Amino acid sequence: MARKSKKISESRTVMTEIIMPNDTNPINNLMGGNLMRWMDIVSAICAGKHCEHHVVTVSVDNVSFDKPVPVGDVITLQAVVTRAFSTSVEIFVEVFAANMQGGNSRRCNDAYFTFVAVDDSKKRPQAIPAVLPLTAEELKRYDEALQRRQLSLLLAKKLPPEKAQKIKAELIQNL
Amino acid sequence: MARKSKKISESRTVMTEIIMPNDTNPINNLMGGNLMRWMDIVSAICAGKHCEHHVVTVSVDNVSFDKPVPVGDVITLQAVVTRAFSTSVEIFVEVFAANMQGGNSRRCNDAYFTFVAVDDSKKRPQAIPAVLPLTAEELKRYDEALQRRQLSLLLAKKLPPEKAQKIKAELIQNL
Amino acid sequence: MARKSKKISESRTVMTEIIMPNDTNPINNLMGGNLMRWMDIVSAICAGKHCEHHVVTVSVDNVSFDKPVPVGDVITLQAVVTRAFSTSVEIFVEVFAANMQGGNSRRCNDAYFTFVAVDDSKKRPQAIPAVLPLTAEELKRYDEALQRRQLSLLLAKKLPPEKAQKIKAELIQNL
Amino acid sequence: MARKSKKISESRTVMTEIIMPNDTNPINNLMGGNLMRWMDIVSAICAGKHCEHHVVTVSVDNVSFDKPVPVGDVITLQAVVTRAFSTSVEIFVEVFAANMQGGNSRRCNDAYFTFVAVDDSKKRPQAIPAVLPLTAEELKRYDEALQRRQLSLLLAKKLPPEKAQKIKAELIQNL
Amino acid sequence: MARKSKKISESRTVMTEIIMPNDTNPINNLMGGNLMRWMDIVSAICAGKHCEHHVVTVSVDNVSFDKPVPVGDVITLQAVVTRAFSTSVEIFVEVFAANMQGGNSRRCNDAYFTFVAVDDSKKRPQAIPAVLPLTAEELKRYDEALQRRQLSLLLAKKLPPEKAQKIKAELIQNL
Amino acid sequence: MARKSKKISESRTVMTEIIMPNDTNPINNLMGGNLMRWMDIVSAICAGKHCEHHVVTVSVDNVSFDKPVPVGDVITLQAVVTRAFSTSVEIFVEVFAANMQGGNSRRCNDAYFTFVAVDDSKKRPQAIPAVLPLTAEELKRYDEALQRRQLSLLLAKKLPPEKAQKIKAELIQNL
Repeated sequence: MARKSKKISESRTVMTEIIMPNDTNPINNLMGGNLMRWMDIVSAICAGKHCEHHVVTVSVDNVSFDKPVPVGDVITLQAVVTRAFSTSVEIFVEVFAANMQGGNSRRCNDAYFTFVAVDDSKKRPQAIPAVLPLTAEELKRYDEALQRRQLSLLLAKKLPPEKAQKIKAELIQNL
Repeated sequence: MARKSKKISESRTVMTEIIMPNDTNPINNLMGGNLMRWMDIVSAICAGKHCEHHVVTVSVDNVSFDKPVPVGDVITLQAVVTRAFSTSVEIFVEVFAANMQGGNSRRCNDAYFTFVAVDDSKKRPQAIPAVLPLTAEELKRYDEALQRRQLSLLLAKKLPPEKAQKIKAELIQNL
Repeated sequence: MARKSKKISESRTVMTEIIMPNDTNPINNLMGGNLMRWMDIVSAICAGKHCEHHVVTVSVDNVSFDKPVPVGDVITLQAVVTRAFSTSVEIFVEVFAANMQGGNSRRCNDAYFTFVAVDDSKKRPQAIPAVLPLTAEELKRYDEALQRRQLSLLLAKKLPPEKAQKIKAELIQNL
Repeated sequence: MARKSKKISESRTVMTEIIMPNDTNPINNLMGGNLMRWMDIVSAICAGKHCEHHVVTVSVDNVSFDKPVPVGDVITLQAVVTRAFSTSVEIFVEVFAANMQGGNSRRCNDAYFTFVAVDDSKKRPQAIPAVLPLTAEELKRYDEALQRRQLSLLLAKKLPPEKAQKIKAELIQNL
Repeated sequence: MARKSKKISESRTVMTEIIMPNDTNPINNLMGGNLMRWMDIVSAICAGKHCEHHVVTVSVDNVSFDKPVPVGDVITLQAVVTRAFSTSVEIFVEVFAANMQGGNSRRCNDAYFTFVAVDDSKKRPQAIPAVLPLTAEELKRYDEALQRRQLSLLLAKKLPPEKAQKIKAELIQNL
Repeated sequence: MARKSKKISESRTVMTEIIMPNDTNPINNLMGGNLMRWMDIVSAICAGKHCEHHVVTVSVDNVSFDKPVPVGDVITLQAVVTRAFSTSVEIFVEVFAANMQGGNSRRCNDAYFTFVAVDDSKKRPQAIPAVLPLTAEELKRYDEALQRRQLSLLLAKKLPPEKAQKIKAELIQNL
């Protein structure tokens, strides 16, 4: 039976939050950990919509924090699926900030989260729909998702030697 | 000087939340008060973006709660400005729910919130941009906003007698 | 069998909260949505006590916010039942504020909440005790509760035409 | 100048809370520490009202927890001032619980909290009004407050030897 | 069968928290009630580890608050078991504070919490391992724990008259 | 002037938390984002102690989540500094879980966080003490910290070409 394919727009998820005093560090900017928490939530909702299953966070790629977000600012998080593997899915999340008057609008950071789809009771991995990339940007992220996955398996030493060798060679090219 | 006009799409705001255990009543559904709190937040962010000022909630129209939202479901709130008066703005907010697997998607309820724009320090009302309605739906809400405002002033007995009389006559027609 | 009647004082509920930093907007006053959340909670507790059942918020009448409540102030919410219909109950809630030193005591606002009584498992409406108004003020709110209910049914277009006509006529008188 | 006296009823404070999932331990009953937190808040509000100053918690007497309060129950806390010393005040707080349907109403526990009144900026102790006990119960708690204070000073070794000796003798009688 | 004994170090528990804005009173210091809540949590975790059962807070001895802890400071709580009775255990918890730069390090306060071990379902008391005190300090607290327990039973009038008499005589000596 | 050196044990930080219902996903396990939030907090406290300055999260290395942590479990986070650069510091944080009865003790995951030290007002980078590694494990993490930093600069394309070339060559060796 052919595997079901879904468009990326079907599971796109947007989240908006005001930075409240308890979200900040003692110099009154959003704490990195709170931002990661929101990035995980919006990504999980997006992953759930695509997979049509409960999902569990498997890993997060490097996250950098460049621009401070002061208390009272508004952040908007946008999550899209990049590619689905057999039972796992990669989500790309971007963060934007602005003040409450809608000014000083800026892009803050982004990250890649990976989730596995599970059933409710036994929490075993579940097969999920494929991703159908349509725009040039969606295609670019779809292709790169495979490279990120291979690098991740390489670093976790979960690949057979000859496959690992091939990936290493490619990585050196791309660095 | 001509008053600045802004499109409704410029301040449209979307918010997504998972219903967590502490958001629910003892029969495990989202409490009405928590939903009103989120509706106020998304409306305030939308109002701030349109007004380009801090905003303060002035009033909320009748809110009804038809469909229970169980713990673990995801709600999406969408807020748009309907019409701007000299220093206040009316926001229309709609609430949708679905489960974490993206299923059982449904419209839950809606409400109208009114905010006044204020300056930071003295909190005095501030002049704000006009709203430029473009679609048929935007125009319909733009027109009705004036009626809602007049009814609200009538109920608060803030209109001169002859003006009140005229509005009463119109209201009877429309009921 | 005669329907049980209960006095309003039996379910009167008082709630006190300190305005904490996370309850405020960026200009350091209590957010309207947080106040609505507390109004819903105190009303629900009051409704549960009168109905002797779990209750679910059905609707809230217009809520206005006149006076800002700054961080560190104390608010007191008082909820009383006004009238019980067959399976639903209307609650009147008033909000007062003062500073932490007990000074600047003032009345902030009020609202009417309607709840339906439900059983635990199937969440079907349940018959509830009648309300026994005793003081002049209690009687006044008891009578007005019927008008508010009729207006609400009218606006929701849930009344037969001739009944709707009669209520409209009365409403025009009272406006 | 004669010291101002205030009646106990002027500062009596009532607080109501629903036990939410995050307030409970893994066997689903209210955690003792959360109850102590609420007892401190209601006592502080009561102390602030009597003292007409900001107040700081100085100490809490033994607190016992006899009856478990399950998730979904409602607790009501009542705080009254018992006696005022020159710059400190003792508060008596009682806790009652019931379920959301108003049933299984029961007294849970009580405690004595002591607060010192301070000014805003330098946080130095401030003179406060005296307490005017009126009922027999209020007089009893007023008299006992002095004993509790002496015992507390004794345990903290803050009394001169001969005074300490006298208090010890009385304590043995009363034990 | 000989009762199992456990070393105190096996259940020692350390907890660290940053004082956030919502943890403070209106003069920006940690509220006493919040500190008691954390003291209860760290003590409960320590008690659970020693008892190998779920535990429920039974009582807390006098708690004093000497030194204010401002917002942004870090507190460290250390909990150790002092002595185990047949089904209950006493925990000693100490609180330290410092600023976020690690400076102004100081001891804030301490308290004794008593927990009873219970089974999951029926919540009946459960037999627990004995405590094996090793250092001089551990032995001192072990011995004093018995005195604290006897005083507590005396105050609760839970001892037979002749036993009560004997304990009173000892208490007078020690005061 | 010689740069001050500090031992790793001086800033080691331990944090303990109970997994509460609001920390979990709909299948009742700790959400990855909440764990990252706690990892960031404990790392920031550790970094602040070493640097003797306020610190801001710069980046987090890959984080993986292998073992689910159910509601009611206790997690312990341990943070140590690995190496200090001129104004930034790398922190290694490990997470352990166990149930409330102290059983099923297990290592969950780990991560590397990087912080920059800043002054309070202008938030400019500040010089910080060096790290003095003493044990074999501390020395190993100290050496690897430099590699992680170079890889991170390489990926961010912040290195001059010839330096980048040299690092690439080493990386290929180590993969």
